Amino acid sequence: MQNIMEYETVSLDDERSALVIVDQTKLPHEMVMLALTGQKDIRNAIFTLQVRGAPAIGVAAAIGFYLAAKDLREETFEPFYQKLKEAKAYLASARPTAVNLFWALDRMERVVLDSAHKPVSEIKALLRGEAVRIREEDIQACGAIGAYGLSLIKDGDGILTHCNAGQLATVKYGTALAPIHLGHEKGYRFKVFACETRPLLQGARLTAFELRADGIDTTVICDNMASRVMKNGWIQAVFTGCDRVAANGDVCNKIGTSGLAILARYYGIPFYVCAPASTIDMDTLTGEEIPVEERPVHEVTDMWYRRRMTPEGVKVYNPAFDVTGHDLITAMVTEYGIIRPPYADRLKEIIAALPGFLTRSKSVP
Amino acid sequence: MQNIMEYETVSLDDERSALVIVDQTKLPHEMVMLALTGQKDIRNAIFTLQVRGAPAIGVAAAIGFYLAAKDLREETFEPFYQKLKEAKAYLASARPTAVNLFWALDRMERVVLDSAHKPVSEIKALLRGEAVRIREEDIQACGAIGAYGLSLIKDGDGILTHCNAGQLATVKYGTALAPIHLGHEKGYRFKVFACETRPLLQGARLTAFELRADGIDTTVICDNMASRVMKNGWIQAVFTGCDRVAANGDVCNKIGTSGLAILARYYGIPFYVCAPASTIDMDTLTGEEIPVEERPVHEVTDMWYRRRMTPEGVKVYNPAFDVTGHDLITAMVTEYGIIRPPYADRLKEIIAALPGFLTRSKSVP
Repeated sequence: MQNIMEYETVSLDDERSALVIVDQTKLPHEMVMLALTGQKDIRNAIFTLQVRGAPAIGVAAAIGFYLAAKDLREETFEPFYQKLKEAKAYLASARPTAVNLFWALDRMERVVLDSAHKPVSEIKALLRGEAVRIREEDIQACGAIGAYGLSLIKDGDGILTHCNAGQLATVKYGTALAPIHLGHEKGYRFKVFACETRPLLQGARLTAFELRADGIDTTVICDNMASRVMKNGWIQAVFTGCDRVAANGDVCNKIGTSGLAILARYYGIPFYVCAPASTIDMDTLTGEEIPVEERPVHEVTDMWYRRRMTPEGVKVYNPAFDVTGHDLITAMVTEYGIIRPPYADRLKEIIAALPGFLTRSKSVP
Repeated sequence: MQNIMEYETVSLDDERSALVIVDQTKLPHEMVMLALTGQKDIRNAIFTLQVRGAPAIGVAAAIGFYLAAKDLREETFEPFYQKLKEAKAYLASARPTAVNLFWALDRMERVVLDSAHKPVSEIKALLRGEAVRIREEDIQACGAIGAYGLSLIKDGDGILTHCNAGQLATVKYGTALAPIHLGHEKGYRFKVFACETRPLLQGARLTAFELRADGIDTTVICDNMASRVMKNGWIQAVFTGCDRVAANGDVCNKIGTSGLAILARYYGIPFYVCAPASTIDMDTLTGEEIPVEERPVHEVTDMWYRRRMTPEGVKVYNPAFDVTGHDLITAMVTEYGIIRPPYADRLKEIIAALPGFLTRSKSVP
């Protein structure tokens, strides 16, 4: 098995003018690297989940935006900017829920607007710099989240996680899995329970793949086994990632997360959300305002099965995310430290302390 | 689509000396009736879930026991009884959790013991009568559970159910689905949400199949979507079946049930367990004492997928059941009426009021 830890999930290949990603739809069966050059292929990679995970999507979109700019023949600002706005809207339409996509594209657009007086060639160079910076910040943020998160757990702990908020959802390390990878490096022996995460099996396919590659004790369970595993006393902490944090601390994450938070509350197990600042959206007041993507029915009925397991004529509901109320979250782990309730105040402080170029614009659709 | 409601899930074919069942491993793709004559095939049908659902297993085992007796050439009591004890142990070893299997076999054995002075041919006739009686009692019990359960819900309600506690888990009507089938006959329009029930998809395959066949509005969801569906306000009641009720009211049922009960409690939704008296086991004091079957890993990793979706080298935990604490259960629906906490007293009353031949022996393994 290739060690995914030796790869970076999302990167820029200047020579090929390509966004290079690990194709996550092929895992765990094949480790395929894709070099995507056209906007259609890049948007499609986000849409079809070849690249997925809120932070990774943000980085991929930033690189995609840069590549769109690089390819433009326009030599004056206005037509150049018009084309880029189209490219931005096109990339932004790939997925609705994770805010990192819009956040990264907004950052890229702001570089363009702040440089309206500069030659287009220089703007392109600045955009490359911003895309690379977004990517490097993601690596740093995940490293910091790993260190802070590790302070919440101890050697031998059983940790439940959902979906994949690991290296494969970021550039390196991951968010929810960063403390586990980091602790493992330091010799901690965790027992990780990965919910398989229906319908797309990100837990069984991706989290199991990357933890196994890193040599970490990993047990896959069906999503509905979490209650029993908790009751067995096997879980000392739950760690998940998130796709968007609302201003009040509500968290939107992979479908099933809210159920795990409720179970953790019932069993008295701490429930931690790992959230880089890029997922915090102060313009969304509560989780109820977050648009939740509904995905195709065939993901539930027949996608992996290769034949339809649900009878025809039966309806299927397939929301990709759910919202976990802030009151169910024990703490959030950000790259700026661990925050605890009341989240509204602490989130405001984090965002207020960020450099201006990092704060969210109002252009989230 | 064949209307499963026109079939009986488990029956005795005297002419062919066969246990006749709907092969549930073939649904929803094919409606295959199996006529099983040998003890090996009958045990295997229970073991491989061709027949499943606590009540249906009990009826199948009773018919299997009768067929074992019918085939015996022994003409005197002692060798006849010895052979039957072997047959009983063999059938009882098929699955460990649902108590109906042991309960039905105990009833059959008691007929033999109570008739030790009678000719073997007469004992065989009495055994046929008992098997037929167990089967008919199941139909009656499900009918009564349907009527009592229906009093708990109203036209237009959204109902969440897990696994399949329907007609396919019994002889007719089902337990958890009996109120739904019965209400539908009376013109109630329910909206049923069926958890797909990983790993074996009894919800997506069987519950969806039988509800659709009956013309009932049915939506399949992945198990991890239950929290969102409840939060959406779509669920007015949860109905599940059960495989064993302990003396204190703890309930063992399909893996995932306890999680749904905790979610229902959190969202303030009533959680009802439909439990024919045959699932009540007064010899098991609490749910913790119930042996929980662990099933093969491949059910989780690759069974429907036709290829392994979980990387090699990763552990898998596959318990078939979990235990829901009695404090999480709003009410239990039995064929003798609806009972509410404290369950220990009410269960004792139900069992005490049963005719002696119906009460549980101590021979549960």
